[in-house]
Amino acid sequence: MKSLQRESPYPMVPVTEAQQIIAAHSAPLPTEAISVLEAAGRVLAADVHSSEAMPDVAKSVVDGYALQASDGRAERRVLAEVVAGGSDTATVAAGTAVRIMTGAPLPDGADAVVMVEETEEQGGMLRVQRDIRSGQNIRTVGQDVGLHELIVPQGAVLGAAEVGLLAMVGITRVTVYRRPRVAIVSTGDEVIEPDAPRTRGEVRDSNRYALLAAIREAGGEPISLGIARDDEDVQRTALLRGFEQADVVLSSGGVSMGTRDLIKPLLAALGTIHFGRVLFKPGKPTTFATVDGKLAFGLPGFPASSLVSFEVFVRPALRRLQGDARPDRPRVQVALSEPIRPSPDRPEYQRIIVVWQDGQLVARSTGPQISSRLLSLRSANGLLIVPPGEAVFQPGATLDALLTGPLVTI
Amino acid sequence: MKSLQRESPYPMVPVTEAQQIIAAHSAPLPTEAISVLEAAGRVLAADVHSSEAMPDVAKSVVDGYALQASDGRAERRVLAEVVAGGSDTATVAAGTAVRIMTGAPLPDGADAVVMVEETEEQGGMLRVQRDIRSGQNIRTVGQDVGLHELIVPQGAVLGAAEVGLLAMVGITRVTVYRRPRVAIVSTGDEVIEPDAPRTRGEVRDSNRYALLAAIREAGGEPISLGIARDDEDVQRTALLRGFEQADVVLSSGGVSMGTRDLIKPLLAALGTIHFGRVLFKPGKPTTFATVDGKLAFGLPGFPASSLVSFEVFVRPALRRLQGDARPDRPRVQVALSEPIRPSPDRPEYQRIIVVWQDGQLVARSTGPQISSRLLSLRSANGLLIVPPGEAVFQPGATLDALLTGPLVTI
Repeated sequence: MKSLQRESPYPMVPVTEAQQIIAAHSAPLPTEAISVLEAAGRVLAADVHSSEAMPDVAKSVVDGYALQASDGRAERRVLAEVVAGGSDTATVAAGTAVRIMTGAPLPDGADAVVMVEETEEQGGMLRVQRDIRSGQNIRTVGQDVGLHELIVPQGAVLGAAEVGLLAMVGITRVTVYRRPRVAIVSTGDEVIEPDAPRTRGEVRDSNRYALLAAIREAGGEPISLGIARDDEDVQRTALLRGFEQADVVLSSGGVSMGTRDLIKPLLAALGTIHFGRVLFKPGKPTTFATVDGKLAFGLPGFPASSLVSFEVFVRPALRRLQGDARPDRPRVQVALSEPIRPSPDRPEYQRIIVVWQDGQLVARSTGPQISSRLLSLRSANGLLIVPPGEAVFQPGATLDALLTGPLVTI
Repeated sequence: MKSLQRESPYPMVPVTEAQQIIAAHSAPLPTEAISVLEAAGRVLAADVHSSEAMPDVAKSVVDGYALQASDGRAERRVLAEVVAGGSDTATVAAGTAVRIMTGAPLPDGADAVVMVEETEEQGGMLRVQRDIRSGQNIRTVGQDVGLHELIVPQGAVLGAAEVGLLAMVGITRVTVYRRPRVAIVSTGDEVIEPDAPRTRGEVRDSNRYALLAAIREAGGEPISLGIARDDEDVQRTALLRGFEQADVVLSSGGVSMGTRDLIKPLLAALGTIHFGRVLFKPGKPTTFATVDGKLAFGLPGFPASSLVSFEVFVRPALRRLQGDARPDRPRVQVALSEPIRPSPDRPEYQRIIVVWQDGQLVARSTGPQISSRLLSLRSANGLLIVPPGEAVFQPGATLDALLTGPLVTI
């Protein structure tokens, strides 16, 4: 029998220090030009300014009549109609008016538009029912977008509005950061494919399935490397295949101190381990290495540990690789709805449902928090950061939490 | 000249009533079976229960030694090693212990596991340094998942954890609701493709680009119908093409009272208009119709109006069509950071950035809120619901808001 290690050679690194070490190795990837139609969710790689003012001519905001305000309530003769996109032109002089539709350019000479609802037209003559203010119902040049105005800044995640803004200023191809390719291998002789027949004691590979979805949610392109059994050559081959294809390689399992835990020695041989243990629950053995400039994360094998460690350590790195100016989840303060027992020696990231209730954020537990219980993450939209200690946190106490999904309201 | 309508034939419907009318026509679409690997973001169509308890045998939580607690601190003879996934079996009797690795089945006869860090092994004999509690470091049968336990409920949006849970219970194909296909046509003679040369007064079609992205974010499959000029036949053809291909048809523009506003009469001729105006800003002319059981939304042409109307009226419908048990955005209360002037006659949905600051949610304005200014939506993560009236809301006052994106923290 191979001898059992009694002490880890890796010091316990605090969470914040571990995150800083990872961030220092997570510079944005190269950029690429893509269609704006495919750009939602991507991160803009350079500021975009408008090369024009918008609107470029004064326009009507309503359907109605363009006229001169100084005529007051006097009757006006209706000359013509101008519509948006039409080629009609007209000039408004004192005592006259021009029918105008929403979005149409203001005719020369006019300085106000009256809404159709506030007028009467009969026999070619217009009567207005209210006083008129010069400039009313007119969009002036540059009111929506100024010349050279910043439209979308570098580092912004492109949503529907930003995609619209880019189209508005005539940009249909846009430069964004490349998405990270992220490979994931599950390890363990006891681990089987979810659709394989299962014998006593075997466990289905939920981790790889969950992580493939988490990688995509984080903006990465997931690559599955399957399951590698507890054999040094098999696992080395899988990792090397990962570094060949991907920017980031994740493994699940094989990072504890057992005789079959091979990931740490393999990463140490292939590259540099920056930390091999974190003062953190669940996920103490989480390991971070670099191999030829690529990132490697050895995640724990317990399902809740692997997904929480991904959230706390891997996801911010994937966001940084994409150039996201805000790579971290929002951190808020939440009130406890039930007593929370801390871990004596490590900060614990407990899975919670964050509810907006009576004007405050309230944390509800997702049940037992043991590392193997993936159900603790079902419907969870937050991670409660419970500082270590002996004293139970009482209901009503306030703790920090990361928001990992939309708030729940009741 | 065609005569100008002076009064809309459509009554102004309050927002809540409009939303209820839409919801009544938004039953979930048929279901389909897909791979769990493609299921993230989809909505589960039937409860999933586990047909097994997990773990199915008692297992060790740590690397260490399986033994009998009743032996106390007495020395034990080390018999063998059991690893996760191994076929080794062993039986622990009084005075003996078996090396065990994380995740390995507990040998017969053992009732506790001691962590390797708390032991010494020499010459085949084990010494333990602490008292031992029966059951310690053991995952009992069913501790993670009970037999017949509900794993993921119908109506849940599948995230990474839920995908992992499905794999864990052996499900690799899953029944979800079909995504709605959503077609969008822009209207207007002044509207041009974003990459076309632009002449004076023309506007680029930002609405369709923004809406295509918004449809995808809402879980729909977007279909672009291009731009239809202000001609009845052209617009009718475009709408019919939409109803042929899609479950939902959106139009942008052409819903005001101008002589070129053709969408309402066309929808009235093709199907049934359920409302044609909403007591709402920006987006009063928003129109909802059904045509042979399919949904149609006539959205306003101003960029901010079209995207806000999509958010308030269309997005919840698309979530309902997908069977989402929580189709609405979270509604919270936010404190104003600056004075807000209400619209005198209509509730206004102002675009804001919601910031978590000093333990509360604070609303920051995105600048001028005119309907044409799409920049009011840049970086916005919320819609502030400003009730109508004359009095300005002062800083510190609290109003309701919809959260449309992650909170910003400072």
